[in-house]
Amino acid sequence: MSQPVDPAKLTADLVRCPSVTPEEGGALQLLQEALADAGFLSIRVDRNGTPNLFARWGTKGHARSFGFNGHTDVVPVGDEAAWTHPPFGAEFDGGWLYGRGATDMKSGVAAFVAAAIDFVRTTPPDGAIILAITGDEEGSSTDGTIAILDWMAEEGEQMTACLVGEPTCPETIGDMIKIGRRGSMTAHITVAGKQGHSAYLHKALNPMPAVALLAHRLSSRVLDEGTDHFDPSTCSVTTIDTGNPASNVIPAQTRMTVNLRFNDTHSGASLTEWLQAEADRVAEETGTRITLEAKISGEPFLTPPGALSTLVSQAIHKETNQNPVLSTTGGTSDARFVKSHCPVVEFGLVGHRMHEVDERVWVQDIHDLKRIYGRILTDYFA
Amino acid sequence: MSQPVDPAKLTADLVRCPSVTPEEGGALQLLQEALADAGFLSIRVDRNGTPNLFARWGTKGHARSFGFNGHTDVVPVGDEAAWTHPPFGAEFDGGWLYGRGATDMKSGVAAFVAAAIDFVRTTPPDGAIILAITGDEEGSSTDGTIAILDWMAEEGEQMTACLVGEPTCPETIGDMIKIGRRGSMTAHITVAGKQGHSAYLHKALNPMPAVALLAHRLSSRVLDEGTDHFDPSTCSVTTIDTGNPASNVIPAQTRMTVNLRFNDTHSGASLTEWLQAEADRVAEETGTRITLEAKISGEPFLTPPGALSTLVSQAIHKETNQNPVLSTTGGTSDARFVKSHCPVVEFGLVGHRMHEVDERVWVQDIHDLKRIYGRILTDYFA
Ligand SMILES: [Zn+2]
Ligand SMILES: [Zn+2]
Repeated sequence: MSQPVDPAKLTADLVRCPSVTPEEGGALQLLQEALADAGFLSIRVDRNGTPNLFARWGTKGHARSFGFNGHTDVVPVGDEAAWTHPPFGAEFDGGWLYGRGATDMKSGVAAFVAAAIDFVRTTPPDGAIILAITGDEEGSSTDGTIAILDWMAEEGEQMTACLVGEPTCPETIGDMIKIGRRGSMTAHITVAGKQGHSAYLHKALNPMPAVALLAHRLSSRVLDEGTDHFDPSTCSVTTIDTGNPASNVIPAQTRMTVNLRFNDTHSGASLTEWLQAEADRVAEETGTRITLEAKISGEPFLTPPGALSTLVSQAIHKETNQNPVLSTTGGTSDARFVKSHCPVVEFGLVGHRMHEVDERVWVQDIHDLKRIYGRILTDYFA
Repeated sequence: MSQPVDPAKLTADLVRCPSVTPEEGGALQLLQEALADAGFLSIRVDRNGTPNLFARWGTKGHARSFGFNGHTDVVPVGDEAAWTHPPFGAEFDGGWLYGRGATDMKSGVAAFVAAAIDFVRTTPPDGAIILAITGDEEGSSTDGTIAILDWMAEEGEQMTACLVGEPTCPETIGDMIKIGRRGSMTAHITVAGKQGHSAYLHKALNPMPAVALLAHRLSSRVLDEGTDHFDPSTCSVTTIDTGNPASNVIPAQTRMTVNLRFNDTHSGASLTEWLQAEADRVAEETGTRITLEAKISGEPFLTPPGALSTLVSQAIHKETNQNPVLSTTGGTSDARFVKSHCPVVEFGLVGHRMHEVDERVWVQDIHDLKRIYGRILTDYFA
């Protein structure tokens, strides 16, 4: 019988693969081989050059098919000189493992891969375990998890429940599960007037009062008060840029970007309509021309508390004695793609310095996470 | 007896001198020699490398000392390929003389130099004529006309009235005199909050709503309704720049510039105080830190309608049959420095494409302007 897979060693092996989006860096290849060795169907399902890995143990289309989703790509290292440990060195120091991707999320991937391999070796279930691992979550995501799901639909592959292994815990491993996410959208707005000299305003039409008024109205609007499961929706002006160096010149136009995080009392379409109406009203009041380009990165979604969240919560409680909060906070994740296929929750580590220099993971947490994931599998197939 | 000076030829000679600020380009040297030949004391009074010319005919400190002020420097040519005539070529075409500085204001300088030389040659007055010509009006102006005036004060030189020969006429030569100017000031404002992620607003403090509110309030404020001689004061936001490329990031700070044009119901100090109070109020309301740096480029001034404006108006009427409007519109000019020394008005040509490509002057207007300036001298010393 094989030794259990060491998830910390596997994390370190993955950290040493320089898989900065869109580079595969050897990370998926390493996992593909390990899973094949353990008896998984383990194949690359790349799309448009984006590397993706699909693995399944058990029967295709089984009514009990538990899935894990994650990514091996990482964000750039930033100022490499500022790291105390080399970002692809995977050095263990004082109980920590250092490196880019140490928490986001090579440790999460290592933990569920290790748990899945051990589980099928020791207690092969009546059902299937599916791993959907992408090399593009930090980038545009257009050919990442969504490509694996598209491929699965074509092939008749399906998950009946899915856990996304992104870091979710604010303080202590086990303190939070995510059961949904707010939606996210960005609108780029251009306000155009007429250039002129600031001493002859009657010949000009300044777009700046219009952009100020619109920014003020959008920032002041209370979109909702939140719901049982969601925080209130927010609308943030993130930048206004005019680029007019001459203080005696009235600029011809200016640009503004707004970012919205919204719960399920709205949709990308309803908010685009609202933004357009506010823009039109300011244009009318000021005589400027205002154009708006909206990009919806994700609609809000919720897996209402139920069988899956209870399963995961109980597994966490058994292993850590924590009672996790069911939350919908935070940015987007690939759960937004999975949610149209099956119930999905997110659960993973505490994120230490994610996307920053000296990203690191508490090594004991990786072992705890593997145990929790193993318990989830045990209970799911019980 | 000498021939009358041809002001169009003198303008063309000056246009051929490439005197883009701060280059002297030979323009002041040409004038210095012409004035010396005509019996003027004619000397360079440069300061900190800025070229300036002072010329006087007649007795120093005479109780009737009429002055002309102007500049020979020009703004850059811009897109030289877009000119239909070379910007320093001084080409005559279809009744026009083309070139950078053709109207702003080598023609004005040429007209008053020609008028002054002819006048002292034909009817030497009991009094003095002073010409104060700078090579830095388009630049920072810190060592230009103000340096000539400082030097004059030290030397006991003085003007009892002064005409600034900048272009003043909107449509037809003779249609407008400027008897004052609004003040001008610029404030650079920085609004600082706390950087963060747009999905976790409670950890950030977005400076954008604050800058929008401040811009909205400053733009909406009616500063006054204007006065008998002045247009209403205005406050223009000319740029807001944040430079935040990431739509999921709340920026740490943003910058705004406002430009104010104000009449004599305000001062630079009173408006700085108002801006500071508005900034403080928004900072208080939003929790942001707002800093403000104000630069006053000129206080408003007025030479109330009286002897000097009547003299100039009547001379214009005699020569052109126009009844000039007494105005205070437009940007700043060096009259803002002269006004603390003696009554000052501004009168000159129609500005055709000033500071643009294909700047040009209607040649007949140069001759008319010289006649008007000559008539002003005749009447002043009558
Ligand atoms: Zn991640
Ligand atoms: Zn000028």
